[in-house]
Amino acid sequence: MSSNRPNLYIDANIDRFKEELFALLRIPSVSTDSRRKGDVRAAADFLESQFKSIGLENVRVFETPGHPIVYGDFLHAPGKPTVLVYGHYDVQPAEPLELWTHPAFEPTVVGDDVYARGASDDKGQAYIHVKAIESWLQTEGSIPVNVKIILEGEEEIGSPNLIPFLEEHRGRLACDMVLVSDTSMFDKDVPSITYGLRGLAYMQVEVTGANRDLHSGVYGGAVANPINALAGIIAQLKDEQGRIAIPGFYDDVADLTPAEREAYAKLPFDEDRYKRELGLHDVTGETGYSTLERASARPTLDCNGIWGGYQGEGAKTVLPGKAAAKISMRLVPNQDPHVIARRFIDHVRSLAPEGVTLEVHEHHGGMPAVTPLDSDGMKAAAQAFAEVYGKEPLFTREGGSIPIVAAFKRILAADTILMGFGLNSDAIHAPNEKFSLTDFRRGIHTSASFFRILGGA
Amino acid sequence: MSSNRPNLYIDANIDRFKEELFALLRIPSVSTDSRRKGDVRAAADFLESQFKSIGLENVRVFETPGHPIVYGDFLHAPGKPTVLVYGHYDVQPAEPLELWTHPAFEPTVVGDDVYARGASDDKGQAYIHVKAIESWLQTEGSIPVNVKIILEGEEEIGSPNLIPFLEEHRGRLACDMVLVSDTSMFDKDVPSITYGLRGLAYMQVEVTGANRDLHSGVYGGAVANPINALAGIIAQLKDEQGRIAIPGFYDDVADLTPAEREAYAKLPFDEDRYKRELGLHDVTGETGYSTLERASARPTLDCNGIWGGYQGEGAKTVLPGKAAAKISMRLVPNQDPHVIARRFIDHVRSLAPEGVTLEVHEHHGGMPAVTPLDSDGMKAAAQAFAEVYGKEPLFTREGGSIPIVAAFKRILAADTILMGFGLNSDAIHAPNEKFSLTDFRRGIHTSASFFRILGGA
Repeated sequence: MSSNRPNLYIDANIDRFKEELFALLRIPSVSTDSRRKGDVRAAADFLESQFKSIGLENVRVFETPGHPIVYGDFLHAPGKPTVLVYGHYDVQPAEPLELWTHPAFEPTVVGDDVYARGASDDKGQAYIHVKAIESWLQTEGSIPVNVKIILEGEEEIGSPNLIPFLEEHRGRLACDMVLVSDTSMFDKDVPSITYGLRGLAYMQVEVTGANRDLHSGVYGGAVANPINALAGIIAQLKDEQGRIAIPGFYDDVADLTPAEREAYAKLPFDEDRYKRELGLHDVTGETGYSTLERASARPTLDCNGIWGGYQGEGAKTVLPGKAAAKISMRLVPNQDPHVIARRFIDHVRSLAPEGVTLEVHEHHGGMPAVTPLDSDGMKAAAQAFAEVYGKEPLFTREGGSIPIVAAFKRILAADTILMGFGLNSDAIHAPNEKFSLTDFRRGIHTSASFFRILGGA
Repeated sequence: MSSNRPNLYIDANIDRFKEELFALLRIPSVSTDSRRKGDVRAAADFLESQFKSIGLENVRVFETPGHPIVYGDFLHAPGKPTVLVYGHYDVQPAEPLELWTHPAFEPTVVGDDVYARGASDDKGQAYIHVKAIESWLQTEGSIPVNVKIILEGEEEIGSPNLIPFLEEHRGRLACDMVLVSDTSMFDKDVPSITYGLRGLAYMQVEVTGANRDLHSGVYGGAVANPINALAGIIAQLKDEQGRIAIPGFYDDVADLTPAEREAYAKLPFDEDRYKRELGLHDVTGETGYSTLERASARPTLDCNGIWGGYQGEGAKTVLPGKAAAKISMRLVPNQDPHVIARRFIDHVRSLAPEGVTLEVHEHHGGMPAVTPLDSDGMKAAAQAFAEVYGKEPLFTREGGSIPIVAAFKRILAADTILMGFGLNSDAIHAPNEKFSLTDFRRGIHTSASFFRILGGA
């Protein structure tokens, strides 16, 4: 079954594939907009019919309290790995419409790119795998691995019904790995695989002094000021090397391996451009690490918000009774958000100065995730990229969290391979979203090759 | 002229004095309420007619862009000091009306107190001096000192037209001292003279990191966080002894004299009650000073407000582009607000960490003021209190600023004697404002005695 017939099929049918994608892009499946509920449903119906026509089995549209999830599978490769493909068919709102040079839901090809809402995020990338599956089923009548696919309609509103769905259908969705194309390549023609995401512990600290706001003239100097107290606490959470000063914070941090640091060093990164784009004179962070390492492979602590006292125009001489801050920590393997939250709380309590009381509580958190570079899936993905793009992919970590990746790990015990075909310049969530049609084609080839390599075909 | 006839006159006429005060209290002269403009004017007219009937000369109602200022004088004591009496006839709004047990503008006597808006602040206290002047003019046909009196109608809205009036009428208002009754006694039957007020330097610090809000996952760790930076700056503004760590900050601070510390030690102060009322476990402040000293005789630094990033419910993973704080310093003699502001700016700039830019600017400030305890006016005031109340007054400082006191010093080069007859329990600016009729009577006696003693009569 070391067939190249799927690849020949892809090249022969690429124009039809594009037209089908354009048809999907014409459906304004904006999940945040209740008036678009029918359009979101129409996109699900379109995919259900696609799944059936390409030969997927057990095709079904699962209803949820919100928008539906479209499922299909083809499980005829006994002894071979099972891959769960995930993507989403809902899109961000297109507003502000006046900033689009072409109508947001009328796909327009300019040069190599198709412009439309959802072109890159995520219809174009999700459809890649549908067409890769088709290329196997329509040429060989089979796929070298077992494939399950779910496309949901609520990613842009935080996937509220996905976790209950995963929990309810744990058996149906059992797999060896998850394959997701909803991220970007490092740069044009620079294929890359995101292998790590940071976790999150998100805390709120509230400091109370007197039982009410006081006049700063009458009481200032004799009564603790909760803003000053809070600032003092925050200032003590990091040291001068930019390291987090919470006892035990680094205990479970997996240091970067030499191979990982080498992968970072290979990334083509222009620090001057980075600074220019952010309007910064300097970048800054933990001593001993590069900007990319700081932004994705090392844990952080950042205040996300702070408030207290008078925030209006001019001067008001208030000594406030309360102040508060939101403080979050990005985590890396093998830090546990709950352990970190506990250590944070203990440490912050120990820092409380005289005359104030503290309340600290934890908002939602998330586990960090790293997919081992030497897993079968990761190796197959790298080889598939190399075949199609003619170069080895870069391995990157992202600084943020993709909550579904942690959910797949927790509920299905499966690592996720993030095989991104977008570009950072695709303007997702913004006007004039686009997607490269060359990468659409190369993506289908890469996915088809991935199935072949992983299946040992 | 060592006459006690004024005092006899006061006792003989006290019931009429009260009725006149009640008539003034019935006029709802709420300066903040444009619908009450006619009532404010009516109060000014009432006082003009009073001034004329008691024998004051050059009585005149000065128009301003807002509410008028009523003036009168009696300048027939050549070689004797000139006293400028200041007070205000406008009042705070009475709302919320439903919390008053008696109508706010229908003075009601309960026990020793009269309840009405303005009873203590400041109609009752200002009228004391009008009746003291009357008691001299109607018995002796003269006053042992030169007296000028101005009663304004805009104190409750920040006296916007008083400073231009003082500047325009610098000559007419020239005096050796200013006499104001618009403060409180330390406690019931504990006469006291406020001899010091703190000054103010009020700053705003704005910290900018990147040119926009960023995703804390993608950029956190590599880009400076303006909230963390601001907290770090604020934390470095005071040391562990509660002293302000700005270089040169204490250079011009006049230390408390032994006499002043002794005066503080004599004040009947219940620290447990203070803590209980404020809901505090501990009081805290500069090492080596008592709570009352910290709150009024020592300089302070307090954050009055802080803001940045996300302040709403739940968690938002933003790495904000900006954060800002309002930070004010209460000053004591001989600190100059502009010098302090300059030192603050220099120091804060030196604390700015890498990766952020700072903007610091100055809001309005105010000079601290202390009236020497051994001035003629202060000694006469103390003796007058002792005569009438049968005990020496306490000398207190207040932690806040009374801007007009600094204005009198700056424009007229005159110290102010704050001869308060109110009580902290008078509920000024609140429902059920009241004033002790005993203190109204004793106040008139004290003022009349003050004129006699100061004039050496």
